[in-house]
Amino acid sequence: MLRGEERMDDLIWRNLKIIQNPRWFCFSLDAILLADFATIKPGDRVVDLGTGTGVLPLLLCARVRDIRIIGLEIKAEVVDMAQRSVALNGLGEHILIREGDIRTAASDLGKGGFDLVVSNPPYAPAGSGKVSGCAIKAAARSEVLCKLEDVIQEAAALLNTEGRMALVHRPFRLTDILCSMRHSQLEPKRLRFVYPILGKEPNLVLIEGIKNGKKDLHILPPLFVYQQPGIHSEAMKEIFGGKFLSQEW
Amino acid sequence: MLRGEERMDDLIWRNLKIIQNPRWFCFSLDAILLADFATIKPGDRVVDLGTGTGVLPLLLCARVRDIRIIGLEIKAEVVDMAQRSVALNGLGEHILIREGDIRTAASDLGKGGFDLVVSNPPYAPAGSGKVSGCAIKAAARSEVLCKLEDVIQEAAALLNTEGRMALVHRPFRLTDILCSMRHSQLEPKRLRFVYPILGKEPNLVLIEGIKNGKKDLHILPPLFVYQQPGIHSEAMKEIFGGKFLSQEW
Repeated sequence: MLRGEERMDDLIWRNLKIIQNPRWFCFSLDAILLADFATIKPGDRVVDLGTGTGVLPLLLCARVRDIRIIGLEIKAEVVDMAQRSVALNGLGEHILIREGDIRTAASDLGKGGFDLVVSNPPYAPAGSGKVSGCAIKAAARSEVLCKLEDVIQEAAALLNTEGRMALVHRPFRLTDILCSMRHSQLEPKRLRFVYPILGKEPNLVLIEGIKNGKKDLHILPPLFVYQQPGIHSEAMKEIFGGKFLSQEW
Repeated sequence: MLRGEERMDDLIWRNLKIIQNPRWFCFSLDAILLADFATIKPGDRVVDLGTGTGVLPLLLCARVRDIRIIGLEIKAEVVDMAQRSVALNGLGEHILIREGDIRTAASDLGKGGFDLVVSNPPYAPAGSGKVSGCAIKAAARSEVLCKLEDVIQEAAALLNTEGRMALVHRPFRLTDILCSMRHSQLEPKRLRFVYPILGKEPNLVLIEGIKNGKKDLHILPPLFVYQQPGIHSEAMKEIFGGKFLSQEW
């Protein structure tokens, strides 16, 4: 199952496993928080734009098994690794990892055919900061292969009316995110800031938009990762403990 | 000094006084938080769009005396009341309360002539909810005489390059605010959510935009009004106590 520098790690919920190559990237809290935040219902048809290791499809299936989810990934080596993770967990009936470009996702996968699109896209704006020399790392971190606007525009095109998009990103991009969502008729409806600890600035933002939704943004109470240095907050313990997973699986 | 149903109240800082008519509106925490949040420097030329009782000009003068501020107000009876508050505090050299329409503020007061524009505008979108039968109350609470977009557009036109706009509003309007500011070349730079208490959703948002500013939004730590029911947070006690007022006055 494992190749080269790959390793196998536990994925917090339902004893799932994931194959990761630490030279490229390993899943982080961002994916867990997004999987927890997204509204997901049995029967949903879902797309993950830029799936990487496939962590979001695996976590979303852990929440609600009865979904069909396509994880779209542009790098062939990463697609191969994510496909092995799906097989390892016996979730091939629910998750399809597919090689493809986010910028043509809607025409490739079908316009208006999905209930939910999730994405943990690259955070660094095109042309800002240092871009990794490793093409796989660069594509995951910086907007070299697609921009935030592409992700949002394709998500909007993939969704049916009242379909949802859930995104995790950095708070400094908030204006970009909200303006781009509204521009694409994905009205921002639910927003949560994640703070490392009380008194610090937030380092993540979770956003859900509804296609053709009415204007009505709901900002949730702040989520603090730690309540004291080294001690997770009660809210984080509940997320890690899978308190919000569906009963049957 | 007082007419009809008017009363005179203390304005938390520097022993200032304010005349208010409780039948129309009385100043609230919103104005205090905005006066505390706005970046203000000695010598600044300032406009308050929709000044009402004149509370924001008075509070901003309390923070930094050496400013010149115009409070624009559309209702003649309210202009008269605010002018008496300015006189009462001996701040006529610094504050001018002027009757006028926000929608023509820039052409009336001078384009590009100001360093700071503040506003505590009506919160309710045009056409939503119940509008007060009292014209003065209605204008203060609902977008009957001007819309958020008017306030932001006129603020942008009033400001010089790198001038600042500071706004207090309801969080459910966040997308409207950020999109409208960016559209008017007032780039959102600093944002703070105000929560009644830990675990609750925010009920106010404070935003500062910079004219022609670079994209770089900074979200401050959350401000909690109460740390326990009935007990103000330390941060609120510091604001009420005037900890951030300039030394000399």
